[in-house]
Order: sequence, then structure tokens, then C-alpha cells
Amino acid sequence: MEAYENGYFTEENSVEVVTGRNKNAKDARLKEVMDVVTRKLHEAVKELEPTQEEWFQAIQFLSRTGQLCTEWRQEYILLSDVLGVSMLVDAINNRKPSGASESTVLGPFHVEDVPLSRMGDNICRDQKGEDMLVHGRILDTEGQPVEGAIIDVWQANDEGFYDVQQKGIQPEFNLRGVFRTGADGSYWFRAVKPRFYPIPDDGTVGKLLGNLGRHPFRPAHLHYMIKADGFEPLTTHIFDPDDRYINSDAVFGVKESLLAEFRKVETPARIRELDFTGPFFWEVEYDFVLART
Amino acid sequence: MEAYENGYFTEENSVEVVTGRNKNAKDARLKEVMDVVTRKLHEAVKELEPTQEEWFQAIQFLSRTGQLCTEWRQEYILLSDVLGVSMLVDAINNRKPSGASESTVLGPFHVEDVPLSRMGDNICRDQKGEDMLVHGRILDTEGQPVEGAIIDVWQANDEGFYDVQQKGIQPEFNLRGVFRTGADGSYWFRAVKPRFYPIPDDGTVGKLLGNLGRHPFRPAHLHYMIKADGFEPLTTHIFDPDDRYINSDAVFGVKESLLAEFRKVETPARIRELDFTGPFFWEVEYDFVLART
Repeated sequence: MEAYENGYFTEENSVEVVTGRNKNAKDARLKEVMDVVTRKLHEAVKELEPTQEEWFQAIQFLSRTGQLCTEWRQEYILLSDVLGVSMLVDAINNRKPSGASESTVLGPFHVEDVPLSRMGDNICRDQKGEDMLVHGRILDTEGQPVEGAIIDVWQANDEGFYDVQQKGIQPEFNLRGVFRTGADGSYWFRAVKPRFYPIPDDGTVGKLLGNLGRHPFRPAHLHYMIKADGFEPLTTHIFDPDDRYINSDAVFGVKESLLAEFRKVETPARIRELDFTGPFFWEVEYDFVLART
Repeated sequence: MEAYENGYFTEENSVEVVTGRNKNAKDARLKEVMDVVTRKLHEAVKELEPTQEEWFQAIQFLSRTGQLCTEWRQEYILLSDVLGVSMLVDAINNRKPSGASESTVLGPFHVEDVPLSRMGDNICRDQKGEDMLVHGRILDTEGQPVEGAIIDVWQANDEGFYDVQQKGIQPEFNLRGVFRTGADGSYWFRAVKPRFYPIPDDGTVGKLLGNLGRHPFRPAHLHYMIKADGFEPLTTHIFDPDDRYINSDAVFGVKESLLAEFRKVETPARIRELDFTGPFFWEVEYDFVLART
């Protein structure tokens, strides 16, 4: 008979009895994780006092959410996103020194091995959407330019879709670019104005959002992943502050410091100079500040 | 632009920002559930400070656990069981008046529509295992017999398997019986001594138990579901206190009041009288007390 320390399970001692079983865990961190998860789970159950039916609804929700996961669809990441857990984990792992640019979620649409572009290239490869010029500098926290920074940028098109969501419709690598800064730390490229879009909302998470009276939309943004030797990598977005969903991002990715100005430019000479065709273009200027490792 | 009340998401205000989005929930109870779940989830993340890799391990564990669920296998119920959540929900929903028998988990092996047996029948339909006589009374909290109580009993065999786990090996309805009490409230039936057995441990939950240094076994028990007009239904077990796992039930189902005595009887006349064949049999006497509705 095994050691019997905490008595049989009761409503009162439930946490101690369950976590007491973890004393022979093979890994101290796993034990810590399961101790905390068990305690918070029991606290939630004690506060909510679910009926057996509610408990079973939760079981079904969790099961179905897992069953929706495939190589191409990760419903549990969506659940983590809409409950603010992804952003919280991001915040905890990216506490930056004062002055450095803030991070936000990576999202599911990053692609590896995008070919290096030349500064100024247009990352829009299908001529659809409203022209946009994006430029700025990569700086250190003393305001000095960072040479040789690799800027990996990606965005949805003006209909709210990434290339990988529309294979065969959008060209490969559409609205993706990788750039390398020179000695002055500056970058610039041409693109199209992004648009808000919904996270995949035809699964359990979309239904939950609907039942909570929440919409599934993310405000228009550009994704950046910036790396440079001697600096912490930065994964972040910049956002259009005039987007209708800017204050209600379904995944809570927006931060005050990541609001960029999307300025409308209607100067014909400048339009021609940039090889744009429309009567106007959007100009976005944004500097990123990297933290030294 | 939507109302913007709580500011953008930060590590500090994460709970308020996320739960603030639930104000238009279609159902007040769903809102309450998600408010509490979000708060406890964020508390756990803030206490544990998971790395991005640990977060992704959790995503993979939850996804895989769902993917294992089928019509015949419910890995999330197992997870709920081994974390003590199932017993906690049972405890919350079955707070009994003083003197009434305590409940425990239903488990996944109950079967509907088992034919009614006559009092005294042997529910062991394959003559395997050590003979056992089970008897007692169904009483109300004043100690008066309950007439017409329906006693639905089921158990694993001496190898630790239920009939439904060994279709084609065990006869249909093996070790299951339904009995109806007469005016004296008493019941008796013949069976075989049950044995400890593991919960299904070839999935994510079994692996988690292994990593936590926990075994997957449940101590030997008989399941009871007892119903009578005018009384709360009772779903419970009785346990063999001499089982090696009695103090470490993998699903925390054991309660002090549910320990029954399994007494070895070696009286030849009594053995013959009961139509038993062995040199001994096990006798279990246990009274159940029902709470009035």
C-alpha cells in the first residue's frame, strides 16, 4: 500500500490531494506546471460550480477543438489567441528595455525562405489594391542606425487574405519581402494598403466568439520580424489606427506604440517617381528600435 | 469605431481587457463561465511564466488529447478524471444530507437496458473468478427500508476488464445486474471478487501520468446506481479496502464511507447453500442510505 498523506479526496482538500500525487514527477518544471494548472482549474470549478451537463459541454468543446486541428488548422492556437493567452505569453517573454519597440503575436501566416528583395521593391506581385509606400529606420536604443538588419515583412491583401490562404489565386510570395539594411539603417519598400480580416471562424472558436457577442476580425496590419547580430529578435506588427476594428482586435495584438500613421499622398510627381499608377498612395513611416542582447 | 473602455492589452490589465469583450454575450451563464475561465487561465500563465516552447507544448497536448477522442474513447474525460475535476464536479453536485450515502464518479462503463435479475442471481455469467456474495439494505435517512428501489450494479472481472472491453470474450451483460428491493429494502446477489485495473493509459493522459510518476490504476470496486421514487438517485462505488491502490486511485474516486469489508468465508455448508464451488467465498455487506428529494 502506498504512502497515504493527504486523506481521501474531498471538496475542501481537492487541490492538496491531487497535487500530492505529483511528488515523484520526472521533471520539476512539469510538476510545477501541473501543480499550478490543477490549483487554478479547481479554483475555477469551485467558483463556477458547474452542473454535470455544463461539465460535459466543456468536455465536448475541448474534444471538438482538438479534433479540428490538422496540419493546416490549429484551433487551439486560435482559442489561446482569442482568450488573450497568446498575447500574455508574448508579453511575458518580451519584456523590452525602455525605448525598444514592442512585440506582438507571430500569427499563423509567416513563411520561411522568402527571397531577399532589393530595397524599394514592390512586394505586391499582382497589382491589386491601393498603393502604399512603407519606410523608416532600424535603430538601437541609443538612436544609432543598425546596419545589416534583416527585415522580414508580410501582410494580407486588400481583400484580407494572405497568399498562403489563396494559393493559385495570389502569386507565390505575394505581399512578402525580406530586406537588409545598409549603413544608415533605413528601409523602404512598396506594397498595398492592408485590410482587416477575420480569423478562421467556422470552428468551435468562431462559435464561441459568436456566443460571446464578439466579432472575429483583426484590424489592418503589417507583420514584421526583424533580426540583427547583437540584438534581440523582434516579432511585431504595425497597425492602421483608422481601422474600424483597431480597438477590438479579436486576438488582442494591438499596442499603443504599434499604431502607425497611414497618410494619403496625392502628389502626381511623387506618384510617378514611385512607379505607382493611382491618383494617390498611402505612405507609412515607422522606425523600429531593437534591444541589444 | 467600437467603444474602447479598458485600453490596449498589457500584462497588467490582461484579464479586464479580455473579459471586457464578453459584455454582449448571448447567455449570462456563458459570460460568467468565460470570465472565470479567462481569469484563472491568466493567473496560471502569470504564475508560471511559460516560455514560447512550453506554450506550444501545451497547445500540442490539448490538440492531441482532442484528436484521440472517438465514439469509444474520451481522452478529455480521462484528463478531467486524473486531475480530480470529475470528482470535484461530482462532489459539488451531490452534497448529501448527513447520513446519506456518498456518491462517486459514474465512470465510462455503465450500460443501459440490462435485464432485471431476481434477487440472489449470480451476475457472473462465465464462472471465472473467486465467488462473492454481496448483500445489504436500501434505507432512508431515518433507517427505514426503501421498497421498490432499483439497484443497478456493474463491475470488472477478476482480470480487471468490463464486459464491454472484452466483447466476444466475456458474455453479454457479464457482471451486470439490476435488482428491485421488496418491502424489507434488502438486496443480495452473487458475483466474483473484483480486481484493480488501469484506466486506458496509451494516450496523452497515460503519458502525462507516467511523467508525473503516477500509476494508472483504480482499486477494486463495484459500481452502483440506485434509484427510488421520492429519493435522490445515487451513483457510487463500494471499494475493497485491502486493494493495493486503495489510497492512490488514479481518478480520486475513493471515499472513507465507501470502504466495504470483503470478508473471506470458508464454511462448506454455506458454500454449498449458495451454489458456490470453491473452498471459500468473499462476503460483502453494505447498506446504502438514500436522501429524500
